[in-house]
Order: sequence, then structure tokens, then C-alpha cells
Amino acid sequence: MASNGNGSLANGASTRGKPIKCKAAVAWGPSEPLTMEEVEVAPPGRLENELQSKFPRILGHEAAGVVESVGEGVEDLAAGDHVVPIFNGECGACAYCESDKTNLCGTYRVNPFKSTMASDGGTRFSVVDGTGERRPVYHFLNTSTFAEYTVLDAACAVKVHPKAPLDKMCLLSCGISTGVGAAWNTANINTGSTVAVFGLGAVGLAVAEGARLRGAARIIGIDINSEKFTKGKEMGVTDFIDSKACDKPVHEVIREMTDGGVDCSFECTGINDVLREAFLSTHDGWGLTVILGIHATPKMMPLHPMELFDGRRITGCVFGDFKGKSQLPDLVDKFMNGRLNLNFDGFITHNMSFSDINKAFQLLEEGKSLRSVLHF
Amino acid sequence: MASNGNGSLANGASTRGKPIKCKAAVAWGPSEPLTMEEVEVAPPGRLENELQSKFPRILGHEAAGVVESVGEGVEDLAAGDHVVPIFNGECGACAYCESDKTNLCGTYRVNPFKSTMASDGGTRFSVVDGTGERRPVYHFLNTSTFAEYTVLDAACAVKVHPKAPLDKMCLLSCGISTGVGAAWNTANINTGSTVAVFGLGAVGLAVAEGARLRGAARIIGIDINSEKFTKGKEMGVTDFIDSKACDKPVHEVIREMTDGGVDCSFECTGINDVLREAFLSTHDGWGLTVILGIHATPKMMPLHPMELFDGRRITGCVFGDFKGKSQLPDLVDKFMNGRLNLNFDGFITHNMSFSDINKAFQLLEEGKSLRSVLHF
Ligand SMILES: [Zn+2]
Ligand SMILES: [Zn+2]
Ligand SMILES: [Zn+2]
Ligand SMILES: [Zn+2]
Repeated sequence: MASNGNGSLANGASTRGKPIKCKAAVAWGPSEPLTMEEVEVAPPGRLENELQSKFPRILGHEAAGVVESVGEGVEDLAAGDHVVPIFNGECGACAYCESDKTNLCGTYRVNPFKSTMASDGGTRFSVVDGTGERRPVYHFLNTSTFAEYTVLDAACAVKVHPKAPLDKMCLLSCGISTGVGAAWNTANINTGSTVAVFGLGAVGLAVAEGARLRGAARIIGIDINSEKFTKGKEMGVTDFIDSKACDKPVHEVIREMTDGGVDCSFECTGINDVLREAFLSTHDGWGLTVILGIHATPKMMPLHPMELFDGRRITGCVFGDFKGKSQLPDLVDKFMNGRLNLNFDGFITHNMSFSDINKAFQLLEEGKSLRSVLHF
Repeated sequence: MASNGNGSLANGASTRGKPIKCKAAVAWGPSEPLTMEEVEVAPPGRLENELQSKFPRILGHEAAGVVESVGEGVEDLAAGDHVVPIFNGECGACAYCESDKTNLCGTYRVNPFKSTMASDGGTRFSVVDGTGERRPVYHFLNTSTFAEYTVLDAACAVKVHPKAPLDKMCLLSCGISTGVGAAWNTANINTGSTVAVFGLGAVGLAVAEGARLRGAARIIGIDINSEKFTKGKEMGVTDFIDSKACDKPVHEVIREMTDGGVDCSFECTGINDVLREAFLSTHDGWGLTVILGIHATPKMMPLHPMELFDGRRITGCVFGDFKGKSQLPDLVDKFMNGRLNLNFDGFITHNMSFSDINKAFQLLEEGKSLRSVLHF
């Protein structure tokens, strides 16, 4: 999914400062298929616009691209820069950005309910609908990457190494940063650590990859789909548990395998019962559980307050606790210099054309892909 | 409540190695009043004894005393030493004791269900019951301090400064260590920190005292009993909230007072709804809630997994995360040398005779005392 930060791809001279017409995959309603539309993208800058409805909308948040132009006052980005959009931005100046305890920016933090630019509450897209009228198209997660051209707040565009391959870098927009960062930053996995990863989708595998790169002694992968185990091995998983085949709770199996429990467990499924198993699978006294899965049910956490007295800890993690603009460029530099053996390619199961976007979603839903990279 | 470690007070020569007859407050059943009995206390050492029932029992866990004698192999304690019993022991040699992440010893950690010596599963007390028969009397929380003489595992007796006043030191057995340690060790309160303490009993006040000693900028005390506020001020509480008088949730009041929430909150009530208020009263991004209250209901934690994604953390804390034998002697030395201005006296509201123990409990239940020190 390649698009770009603060304007859009190439040909800067002819388009800079002017509206751009381009193709985008537009969501017209919550469960409707995405349709390819010619949208108009306003140049970077300020707009006044109070918005009610959230559709039509351009979704998408994992991408990489080239800057077409930058708005007034943007100093750390320029036309031609290679950028990775991040849904969890970093303004660099607020109390949150100045704290070393959080990567949640006061203004540009992730917010799935936001449908406009965080800076001014406006939208930069418009489309002609069935009645022939031009309507605003709303934004998504600070990024809206399902378009040839998009507009990002500068806080949400990370400038990376100019030779970094965009078809790999797009994975840093979400899944890989989240999983690898959870292992590095949130859990601080070290040589000899023992780890359990519940759910071997892209994020779970990125946790395993992050733990492998840090020298974890044991990385136990748990999933109900045993086909995930082949890919898991490639990403550092050392032991597999098919939770459907267990005749006792998974946490008991893990405690037996690890002399009392793992140092860290990662919940990547969004299922409450799995959350409890993940929590109980860590060692008492020092175990840490990191929640990465999206828990959509309104049910409360299935843990009793007194269970925290056994010294097991639990925490949430957004975007791998990376401060995107401060920390990702260094990660990319290390990768480009051969000092970081991060297996980007392992996550890319399909490459297809942008127009096949609905097919890509189908593969993902069927569990047949990890990430499909869409090319414009 | 003064009793002693590994045997009991004074006169070592005549009693050492022999059973000792002494007075103890014996609990004959779950809700029965304590009765003063002459019990026999076996000398320190090994016993073989499989136990079923848990009564009669000698309760009590906050005390200080003088060692009467030590069992074979005990090297860090000797007759005459001043000691503080700790319910959360420290063997110093297990994987937990060797970890710097926990103060839960593998063998001697707090366990309210344990009714015998942790070392050998035996009991050291016996009493002649109504039928004229001698029966074993069970232990409580590794300590059983409601007796003139008690027997402790060496892992549960902390040797302190020989001149330390026992009537103050007994407070280190539980409440003060728990509260002060939660502020120092668990939350790492620093100069300028903002703090909210929910429930101003002895533990809550000890949190405030610990936060005051660390230079916290603001210590907000919350209670339903506004009389607690007078004592609170003495212990460093700077702002009071009478939660019964609030016309909106307490967390909203606190967020308004503190520009978004406190750095740390402490739950000292054991009430689930209060736990949620304590959690929400911290600042997003970096807030930490420490659970200290005993939550007796089987209800799960009233937090949604996704709420942890706002960067608020929550953790349990046992005995203030102090490793008792390693860390308390230093605290006492600092106090004795005038380098730690810990207000022990503020916690002692009553001094009475050991035989008034049931009266002391009544005062505590009625909220009329913080700690009554019983003297033998
Ligand atoms: Zn910021
Ligand atoms: Zn994502
Ligand atoms: Zn130990
Ligand atoms: Zn206590």
C-alpha cells in the first residue's frame, strides 16, 4: 500500500500547491466494498470545516511513499523525501511527546473515531457522488493511505533513509512496528528471556521476530490454526502450542514447559479468555503481559484485583511504544546498514495491484495472507 | 503489639531450648472474641506435623520484640537482638529473592491460608482446652504475634538497630512498610510528583507520609469520613476530597485539579468502584495506580482491556515491595541517625495493655484508632 506524506508522488513542479485528481479506494459506508474513485486531494495547508458524517471515507493506514509537496511551516520534510505514515503521530512539542514514558502525542495520537486532519479538523479529499455533486471525503487514523495521493499532518509522516525500499517500509506503518516494539520497548526482552505469543497473525509474528532479534531463549507461539506454525518458525518461534489440542488450560501447559511461567506474554487475539490465559502463563513475581489485540467486546478484563498481588503485571501497548518520528528512522538506518536483520520479506505474502484491494482484504480475512502489498 | 522473633523476650538462660509457658490471645474460631490463654511455645527447631483444622489459632502480624533464642543453623540472629517480624519473609536464596523484580519469596511469601511454620509445616504452640486435653494452636501469616512469645522462621524476622524503640518499630511489620514502600519502591514518587490516595486509614496515610518524604508536590487524600482529614494533613496530605460530597465522579474532580490527572494513585479501600476511580484519576500516558486494598469480593477488575491503551498502568503491591530483611534495617538506621523524618508517632493513636486486645480491635473497627500499640 504505497502512498505518500504531505501531498503526493512525484511531478512536484506541476502539482505543488494545486488540487490533485487521483485514484483512491473510497469506503461509502461501514460494510460496503471499497470502490475506486477519482478523488480530488487539496494541497497541504489549513482548512476550516466542521464535519458531521464519516462517509464517504478513505481508509488505510499502512503505507510508504514519496513527498509531493509540504505545507507552510513544515521544516523536517521536503518534496522527494521517502516517508512512512504513522497513525500514532508525534508532534515533538507537547507534554506527552516530551515525556519518556509515553508515545501518545497529545494531538496526533491514534484515534479511530477521528475522521479529519488532527491539526485543523478539516478534510483534504473530495469526490463527485452519484448525483453529480462534489462531496468531502473523510480521513481515517491520521493517514488515509488507500489513495495514490494523501495529505498527512507532518507529525504523522516519518522521513526514512532515502534508499529504503518502500514496499518493505510500509510494514513499519503498523504491524511490524507494533510487534517488534512491544518486544523491545514495552517488554524489554533480553538475551535468555522466555516469551509466549498468543495469536500468530502479523503482529504476533512481529513480536516473535522482535524477541528473536533480542536473543530470547524461548519463544512459544500459541494459535488455533496449526498452519501458522510453519511461518512462525521462520520468525523465531521455538515451540508451538495448538490450543485446540490441549487437554488442560494453556497457561498450565506453558508453566510446565517453563518452570513456572514465561517472563513475558503477548495477547494478540483480542479475545478476553485468551487474555486471561496469557496473563496466567507468565511467571509470578515478575511476569509481564502486553495487550496488543483489539478487544471489541464491552466485557471487562477477566482478572481479579487480588491476582495482581502475585506480582504479575499487565499493560497495553500502542504502536510498539515507539515514538515514530524520533525512533523509526534509526531502525531503518540500521536495517539499511545491515546491522538489523529484520525479516521484512517474511511478512509479505502477496504483491498485487492497488485495484485488487478488495481481493487483498478477502485473503486477510480468510487467514491466507499476512500482508499483501498493493502497488500503484 | 510487642512479641518477638525466634523464641521470646529476655531471660534466655533459663528458657533457651525448653518449652515456654506464656500468655497469648487465642482465636478459637472465625468470629469468636480472642481469649487470653496460657499457651506452651515449643523452642525453635524442626517438627513433623500434618495439620487439618485451623483453630485454635494465634493471630497478629504487627509486632516488635527481642530474640529469646534461635534454632540450629540460624546465623544472622542471636538472643537479645531486636527484631521486627514480617509476614512476607525473605529467605535470600530462592530465585524470587535473587530477582530484583519481586519481594515475594518462594517459600516465605505472605499466605493467609497458611496456618503452620513455612519451613516444616509444623506448629509451635499448644494449649489445654476445655476438656483438659492439650491441643496444637495454629500459626498465622508467618508471625502469630498476639502472644508474649512466638516462634518465627528466621526468614520472617528482621534484625534492626539495637536501640530502635520497639513500640515504634512494630509499625514496620505491616502498615507503614506497605504504604511508605508503595510510594518509594512501587511508584517511585519523586520531587514534584502528584499523588492521590484513596482511603485514609493507616496504609493510606503511610502512602502520604512516604510521598511527603520524597517531596511530592501534591498529595490528594480521598475519603468518605471527613474526620480523617485532620490526621491526613499531619501526614503530608495537601488537598482533601470528601467523595460523598462530590457532585461528579471523583476522577473528574481530580483531573480538573491536576491538569489531566495525578502521576500516581493508590487504592487503599478494597472497593471495586473506588479502584476504577483511582485508575481513571491518573494522567493518561504515564499514570500508575497501585492496589493496596484487600478486595474481598469475587468481582473482576472493573477495567476494560482497551482502557490500558491510554497508557495508564495498574499494579499490585505486597509489603511495599520491600525485601524485608535486606532493606528494612537500613530504613531503621536512617531513622535512628536522624536522616529519615518518618512520623511513626503520628500512626500511634492508643497505647494499651495486651489484655485490652479486643477493645483495641473495637476502636479500629469503629474508625477511632489508626494503630493501638499493645504492651506486655
Ligand atoms: Zn505531541
Ligand atoms: Zn494496523
Ligand atoms: Zn526466598
Ligand atoms: Zn497488616
